[in-house]
Amino acid sequence: MSSVRIQVINPNTSLAMTETIGAAARAVAAPGTEILAVCPSAGVPSIEGHFDEAIAAVGVLEQIKKGQEQGVEGHVIACFGDPGLLAARELAQGPVVGIAEAAMHMATLVATRFSIVTTLPRTLIIARHLLQQYGFQDHCAALHAIDLPVLALEDGSGLAQEKVRARCIQALKEDGCGAIVLGCGGMATLAQELTRELRVPVIDGVSAAVKMVESLVALGLSTSKHGDLAFPENKPLSGHFQALNPF
Amino acid sequence: MSSVRIQVINPNTSLAMTETIGAAARAVAAPGTEILAVCPSAGVPSIEGHFDEAIAAVGVLEQIKKGQEQGVEGHVIACFGDPGLLAARELAQGPVVGIAEAAMHMATLVATRFSIVTTLPRTLIIARHLLQQYGFQDHCAALHAIDLPVLALEDGSGLAQEKVRARCIQALKEDGCGAIVLGCGGMATLAQELTRELRVPVIDGVSAAVKMVESLVALGLSTSKHGDLAFPENKPLSGHFQALNPF
Amino acid sequence: MSSVRIQVINPNTSLAMTETIGAAARAVAAPGTEILAVCPSAGVPSIEGHFDEAIAAVGVLEQIKKGQEQGVEGHVIACFGDPGLLAARELAQGPVVGIAEAAMHMATLVATRFSIVTTLPRTLIIARHLLQQYGFQDHCAALHAIDLPVLALEDGSGLAQEKVRARCIQALKEDGCGAIVLGCGGMATLAQELTRELRVPVIDGVSAAVKMVESLVALGLSTSKHGDLAFPENKPLSGHFQALNPF
Amino acid sequence: MSSVRIQVINPNTSLAMTETIGAAARAVAAPGTEILAVCPSAGVPSIEGHFDEAIAAVGVLEQIKKGQEQGVEGHVIACFGDPGLLAARELAQGPVVGIAEAAMHMATLVATRFSIVTTLPRTLIIARHLLQQYGFQDHCAALHAIDLPVLALEDGSGLAQEKVRARCIQALKEDGCGAIVLGCGGMATLAQELTRELRVPVIDGVSAAVKMVESLVALGLSTSKHGDLAFPENKPLSGHFQALNPF
Amino acid sequence: MSSVRIQVINPNTSLAMTETIGAAARAVAAPGTEILAVCPSAGVPSIEGHFDEAIAAVGVLEQIKKGQEQGVEGHVIACFGDPGLLAARELAQGPVVGIAEAAMHMATLVATRFSIVTTLPRTLIIARHLLQQYGFQDHCAALHAIDLPVLALEDGSGLAQEKVRARCIQALKEDGCGAIVLGCGGMATLAQELTRELRVPVIDGVSAAVKMVESLVALGLSTSKHGDLAFPENKPLSGHFQALNPF
Amino acid sequence: MSSVRIQVINPNTSLAMTETIGAAARAVAAPGTEILAVCPSAGVPSIEGHFDEAIAAVGVLEQIKKGQEQGVEGHVIACFGDPGLLAARELAQGPVVGIAEAAMHMATLVATRFSIVTTLPRTLIIARHLLQQYGFQDHCAALHAIDLPVLALEDGSGLAQEKVRARCIQALKEDGCGAIVLGCGGMATLAQELTRELRVPVIDGVSAAVKMVESLVALGLSTSKHGDLAFPENKPLSGHFQALNPF
Repeated sequence: MSSVRIQVINPNTSLAMTETIGAAARAVAAPGTEILAVCPSAGVPSIEGHFDEAIAAVGVLEQIKKGQEQGVEGHVIACFGDPGLLAARELAQGPVVGIAEAAMHMATLVATRFSIVTTLPRTLIIARHLLQQYGFQDHCAALHAIDLPVLALEDGSGLAQEKVRARCIQALKEDGCGAIVLGCGGMATLAQELTRELRVPVIDGVSAAVKMVESLVALGLSTSKHGDLAFPENKPLSGHFQALNPF
Repeated sequence: MSSVRIQVINPNTSLAMTETIGAAARAVAAPGTEILAVCPSAGVPSIEGHFDEAIAAVGVLEQIKKGQEQGVEGHVIACFGDPGLLAARELAQGPVVGIAEAAMHMATLVATRFSIVTTLPRTLIIARHLLQQYGFQDHCAALHAIDLPVLALEDGSGLAQEKVRARCIQALKEDGCGAIVLGCGGMATLAQELTRELRVPVIDGVSAAVKMVESLVALGLSTSKHGDLAFPENKPLSGHFQALNPF
Repeated sequence: MSSVRIQVINPNTSLAMTETIGAAARAVAAPGTEILAVCPSAGVPSIEGHFDEAIAAVGVLEQIKKGQEQGVEGHVIACFGDPGLLAARELAQGPVVGIAEAAMHMATLVATRFSIVTTLPRTLIIARHLLQQYGFQDHCAALHAIDLPVLALEDGSGLAQEKVRARCIQALKEDGCGAIVLGCGGMATLAQELTRELRVPVIDGVSAAVKMVESLVALGLSTSKHGDLAFPENKPLSGHFQALNPF
Repeated sequence: MSSVRIQVINPNTSLAMTETIGAAARAVAAPGTEILAVCPSAGVPSIEGHFDEAIAAVGVLEQIKKGQEQGVEGHVIACFGDPGLLAARELAQGPVVGIAEAAMHMATLVATRFSIVTTLPRTLIIARHLLQQYGFQDHCAALHAIDLPVLALEDGSGLAQEKVRARCIQALKEDGCGAIVLGCGGMATLAQELTRELRVPVIDGVSAAVKMVESLVALGLSTSKHGDLAFPENKPLSGHFQALNPF
Repeated sequence: MSSVRIQVINPNTSLAMTETIGAAARAVAAPGTEILAVCPSAGVPSIEGHFDEAIAAVGVLEQIKKGQEQGVEGHVIACFGDPGLLAARELAQGPVVGIAEAAMHMATLVATRFSIVTTLPRTLIIARHLLQQYGFQDHCAALHAIDLPVLALEDGSGLAQEKVRARCIQALKEDGCGAIVLGCGGMATLAQELTRELRVPVIDGVSAAVKMVESLVALGLSTSKHGDLAFPENKPLSGHFQALNPF
Repeated sequence: MSSVRIQVINPNTSLAMTETIGAAARAVAAPGTEILAVCPSAGVPSIEGHFDEAIAAVGVLEQIKKGQEQGVEGHVIACFGDPGLLAARELAQGPVVGIAEAAMHMATLVATRFSIVTTLPRTLIIARHLLQQYGFQDHCAALHAIDLPVLALEDGSGLAQEKVRARCIQALKEDGCGAIVLGCGGMATLAQELTRELRVPVIDGVSAAVKMVESLVALGLSTSKHGDLAFPENKPLSGHFQALNPF
């Protein structure tokens, strides 16, 4: 079996979360798949708004470039806002999949409508915009926030995890949804357990995106270079962006 | 590696097309995946409208039931109209994926907009309705029909295949799309060749759906039985539908 | 006055409900209209999901074919999911109207927004999809389910009827709607009484559809055979579908 | 058979067009229906834009008031922009139907998509807005204007009629539509002839609206007075609007 | 600095409200801007439904004509339903802006989603239709009515003002909105005070529209006379509409 | 007259284009407005895709921070893709307006539908996404690209300008639009000239955005800090992003 290397990019700089994400990715990777879990060397420790996303997007691009140089076959952007997704697709040769889109796509295959459970209320607008951009507005029954920051998922107390669980249960009772999408890369480890306990699909985008990239690679489908996702125009980047210069 | 069995259902009764479809499925199946390519014992020889779809849907359900009894882990509905998809999801324990939805989902991951190339013009309305239902109206640049019936793809002349190729080229030139979705299960064998020749993703739903089902099985995600895809209500079916009685 | 014969098809096999529906149809039929209330000889006793609908659609087609042989001028599909509607339109020469579409259309003529009251929660998704397909998503204020099965409407206890009435009252108070659409053929007899009591339009699709078909016949408007509702392609159906062969 | 009186309001002041419209209404009216074809005493000779519509809307309201005083059971607004429709519904006790909405509704019952053929290009935006408001944007394949003013339909030369016919033929060839909606009350007499010649439904809104109002009256469905179509608030109108004072 | 004259049209006949609106306009007008606050000589004392709007639209057109004759550079329609907006644009040479559209546009520039607080519940449907027509359905978090008539804002008791304030506070707590749009010209004086107190943008359409018109005039942008907003066709108006004859 | 300082940020690093943009801004600024035209010290020389936008967004944020420190009252993002808009709104105290949104908003006030003329075809998808996000999909008649890079507008040959002009003329003839939106900050100087020559509103976003910001400042409307545009969470940025740390 030929080996496939997939780069899983945590767009924030939290090493703990990068490990969580990497472990979730490896747990579902096919036998022939190697996971390279990485994060930017510079940026934001967690992503909880558009400002954080704009910073993180540059880190994502730096990692995409590095991944290409390492010859990986595909990339995952492991933050629920899918920061820098289309920019990354321009830069990449292979397929690039965001964890929000992966989870949402998967959810529509196993339920008529899904609900989203995420961290801070201020990130809900990002999920709303993604639903609109991906075409899933009518497939989303409701959006929920546990009102804890992203890094609370890594504080070891289990409080955030318990709040996620409670919100999932409430959503299933009230929203008229058939599945739950977990709205943060840091929730990756919760999906399988909640799926078993609640007996409905509780979907983590990290594992979903890994399978999506594996699938695209197996099908020989790369990011289209015909049209608006073609490689960036050949122009010199200046200052601290020089490292990103694609050529 | 544990074995996974996926049932690929050709909803029409053409054995030749069932073989084409089965071959396309096997060509991309993971090492541990076994493909069971089947078609209904009764129904329509090809599917080119809503009437044909209504007939075919019953055949799909019969095969889903049979597949469940055989213990398959998931199902593919291999006709571009995804006939009987939500009914099949009610009946099935495991995931069920249609080839239209699989191809459309995959296309949005590798291009900002895709075009569809299908057979008879009368089937375009079915694709339009699916784009609306799946949420991909804004992701589809244009729909094209080669104006030949489905079975022309099996007549050995190569004429239909040539028309598909010509339409793909025209679509890439005029539509502002980055990928092509092939709109018929009988076109499955064309995708790889056209992807290579045209250097853009040309996507066949059969292979895409196989990878989707493999992914869902690997992720432990089955059709949600919470809510509107729950098993059918326990009611006696009468007449020639008795065989479908789920209990 | 020339006579018009309209076939009213109850897609389930309940004879009691067929009579209820037939009576509702006759109660509003114009003097020159003859109502033929029929149901399939085989199928499901009630329709409460996509699986039931897929079965029922074949029964609808069998009855459409029979109706055509009897020379009826038009057809009504008397189940709120409008099962097999587009397939029936392909098969039929005359107009075919579903009771969901008829009720929804009528509702938009007498109120800016309507609410729907139906039976089991699992059928709500069917109504949602119809709202989307017919274009009435923005015209529907809310959807409600009384959480009783369809056949509870025929059990003589009056419980289901009382629940429908209570939900209508609640909807008028809370939804910001001006009219109610009754979401089941078995509720046909309730409409007039509730319209009088609640002093708002409470709309039954069976009677609405009969008037729609009468109108289309009077206007000389048949199902278009130009384009995608043309008669089914001439192909031999096999097995127990042979009876459906249109030619 | 009890008699029903329907008021058909031509919103412009052209007596010739009022007669054309009245004749089209009478040609399809049921035996028991009496048609009162009227037009405002003051206003615009034809309606070809928003300014004309705003003037005509007041004339429509004056006629609605008069019709109510005469005890008519329902009203038709016979201009394709449906001017004053919601205002008329507030004022009226019985149902009010516009000819654009009637034609569009009917078209969706006999074809999956329709095209519109109207008079001046500047009126297309009015039709576009109605498609959006009524929910039929996805059901309209294309809009066409013959680029002649409304009153050219009454000049006796037959030129406008010939241009309408040519555009219908072109639309059927190019648009992928199954039916044509005629976009002007003055085209009412063309529908039956074109339906026969072109062998597709060519729909005139005047006759369609008459049947809609007959249907609503027969079903006992009046404009909802619960909520936002309640009678206007009791406030004194001043100046030349005093005649409109509803109380 | 050259002088710019902007006509602010209160579409109802309340002189008190005309003064309120004029004062709100003058409070934000640029140094070089002169505000002409006017209302129709005949019409409705307040606007609370479609009927009222249809009457008011004619008054708006009369004032637009008068304003043009006076050589004003632009016009504001100062009622939250924007009555007669497109008709006024046909008639006017300069720009015409409605206060609902102005407030909604401004709101999208300072918040991702806004809520609307208006007077009677029956006017909510007008706001809904404007949101749809202007494209802001997804930008509106919720609509609220204080359930008091428009003129309660002028009764001096402060009750209506207090209810508006309470609803704004509730909306900010529950809707997930970042800004409030005040849904009535009579609320113009409340905006600045509430903006300060609630520390979020509370937007009055009158002042917003004045700045919009000033901006359009400064940019040299007039209503396009190319296409569907061209001057009305040259046709004689009859009866009491003769005064409106544009030529 | 109190002075208002508006920062106009050219997101690319072209000094020539920064001057062009600054001049366009000053040409329409009110007497009391001071324009600070700036561009990032590092980044891309022109913006022609998502990759370029992601880089530019960071430069925009750096300038926003600098502008705040200088005490400017508002900000304009002068690239037609509005890169970093929502991130900038989080960071800023005062209002932030993008030139694409400003031009699109203004266009809907003077025409029922507008067309866009931009530079490279690959940027069309960015405009499409903005139309969707801002709600103007139905207000855009068509999108056109002259197929020349952004910097061709600065090469002094006049070729790009001539192509823009030709496309505007074609759009007005074929699209059914009433206004043109120029889709690049570098086209700012063309708007007034083309407005005069073509006698329709040809709208430049730079000047439109300046007036929008002036208006918001005059109305006392700042970016809402209630909810999802609140200041970024207080977290340490690392590496070359430290300069951006908001606190």
